[in-house]
Amino acid sequence: MADVAALAGVSKATVSRVLSGAPGVSEETRRRIKALVKDLSYVVSPDASRLSRGSTGRIAVVMPHTTSWFYGAVLAGVLSVLRAEGLDALVYQVADGTESRTFFADLPVQRRVDAVIVVAFPVTEHERRQLDLLGMPVVVAGGALEHHAHVRIDDTTAARQAVTHLIRSGHERIAMINAAVTREWPYAPPADRLDGYRTALEDAGLTVDPRLVVDLPWSGTMGADGMDRLLSLDRPPTAVFGFCDEVALGALRSLRRAGVSVPRTVSVIGIDDHPLAELCDLTTVRQPAEQQGARSAHLALDLLGGAPTGELHVTLPTHLVIRATTGPPEDS
Amino acid sequence: MADVAALAGVSKATVSRVLSGAPGVSEETRRRIKALVKDLSYVVSPDASRLSRGSTGRIAVVMPHTTSWFYGAVLAGVLSVLRAEGLDALVYQVADGTESRTFFADLPVQRRVDAVIVVAFPVTEHERRQLDLLGMPVVVAGGALEHHAHVRIDDTTAARQAVTHLIRSGHERIAMINAAVTREWPYAPPADRLDGYRTALEDAGLTVDPRLVVDLPWSGTMGADGMDRLLSLDRPPTAVFGFCDEVALGALRSLRRAGVSVPRTVSVIGIDDHPLAELCDLTTVRQPAEQQGARSAHLALDLLGGAPTGELHVTLPTHLVIRATTGPPEDS
Repeated sequence: MADVAALAGVSKATVSRVLSGAPGVSEETRRRIKALVKDLSYVVSPDASRLSRGSTGRIAVVMPHTTSWFYGAVLAGVLSVLRAEGLDALVYQVADGTESRTFFADLPVQRRVDAVIVVAFPVTEHERRQLDLLGMPVVVAGGALEHHAHVRIDDTTAARQAVTHLIRSGHERIAMINAAVTREWPYAPPADRLDGYRTALEDAGLTVDPRLVVDLPWSGTMGADGMDRLLSLDRPPTAVFGFCDEVALGALRSLRRAGVSVPRTVSVIGIDDHPLAELCDLTTVRQPAEQQGARSAHLALDLLGGAPTGELHVTLPTHLVIRATTGPPEDS
Repeated sequence: MADVAALAGVSKATVSRVLSGAPGVSEETRRRIKALVKDLSYVVSPDASRLSRGSTGRIAVVMPHTTSWFYGAVLAGVLSVLRAEGLDALVYQVADGTESRTFFADLPVQRRVDAVIVVAFPVTEHERRQLDLLGMPVVVAGGALEHHAHVRIDDTTAARQAVTHLIRSGHERIAMINAAVTREWPYAPPADRLDGYRTALEDAGLTVDPRLVVDLPWSGTMGADGMDRLLSLDRPPTAVFGFCDEVALGALRSLRRAGVSVPRTVSVIGIDDHPLAELCDLTTVRQPAEQQGARSAHLALDLLGGAPTGELHVTLPTHLVIRATTGPPEDS
């Protein structure tokens, strides 16, 4: 890689960026580097490709935690693909701000792995620059990161699908219980899902009532807490869209405890299709978590092969799963 | 290790067994080997200990899958301890019989890691022997395996706690929905939990009615399927004990769909304290999953250090968490 950088008169980071298919390099420089790489036979034969990706035989998977369904399912997808290729996975759990700062400062993955898969991780601008400097392929699963390949869902669309289902059932007073985003937790889905909620309402000619949007810091019971607040309003909503299924299930608990009939008095919908959503008869928008893991592992392998043939920015479809927690409003 | 084996006139496997604290070696041989190890200064200073465990700096975690809460929580516990020690975790998902046979035949962990943590894994006799031959510490989390250290709960006790709670509430017709065990899936907890169910009933002077025990192969909806069968009986039970919370939540779905009031007509209890049990108001017996992971990581580190000071067979306590799905039977 140093040869190419020297010959092209650019930094190793730029070469790495071109090789990993990341944006942020001018088209001309990209062409020049690719030609040099080709001349130097950087990656031509499958053997050379195997060699280039075989330096450690390991890929790092970095996730904020491993206990919630989404992360476990993405990990399962990653592991099944890597295992078929005889590659090992080093899993790093980087739970909070402090751990995250240490992790991205030390970058323990350096020289221990060939590529990094970052799973739905709130990455700060500083941390993103650290990842850029790794000089190895970085793929984001369940999110997106400037300069890097990714596999995700369209969070705005998923939210629109959920809210549009409620609108088509006849609801007008539709609330959203959302995960609050802080500077220390720059996680994109809450903003995108709020955007989908808003545009779905606006496109249907409904007004967005700020009292019906509850933002709470992420916790296991935030759905229940959010629903308690909505039930305190003079005119509670007739339908509630939860940031994810765990939030929607929390809302159902409050409604059950309050003796409010679901879906007769209040409809509830989430996003995920968590395995327990089926057991709780929860209407939701399904996102393919395991496939996001599998596709990102394939992308990492492609990038390690040096010649990715497919799209580097993959968006997987989501769709409604209608169960028993949504229906028309009482007075319709 | 070869030196010690030669001097003691035993196999390397025996030395490894003694060093890892595993049983199956006579007390005399154990003493002799320990003395030799001491003479040869196998592990004396913290530096030597660090060296002995620093050969790869990695520990393997082997689990049947990563998507259910229990495995994710155990993994979280393992990762938090290893990270604090600067060690990496290689995670292997060995999902079914075929993968399992390949994994234990090839043992890809050989020479790639210093120790192996096996999480709640149904291990056949042949696979157990393969693990014995690894010549490195093997710790079982959430289960037990002859010859190896382990951290687990007492499944019989946990089941007794659940069923005794139902008996004390006044129930006599108590069913169990259990996970069926096959020769290919020699998983111990179902047998132990069934044993706890039986002894709790017998100790209370109640008869065990075989029609009230439903065995089903593990699936996401087995609790619902099992409850459907119980509701088909001429005299359905007034209380149901599910093998785990996911089974109990499935039973709740069938009861809800059948319009059966919980806990007025039927009480339901599980084992785990899954995070969603709280959201579903499910009464359960809590097992500390993350601590099982953390303690087994500590055990692995102790064994790598060569001189484990504590107990090698750890049983963590479980206890009742009473919520809204259990109560006295209707006619009491």
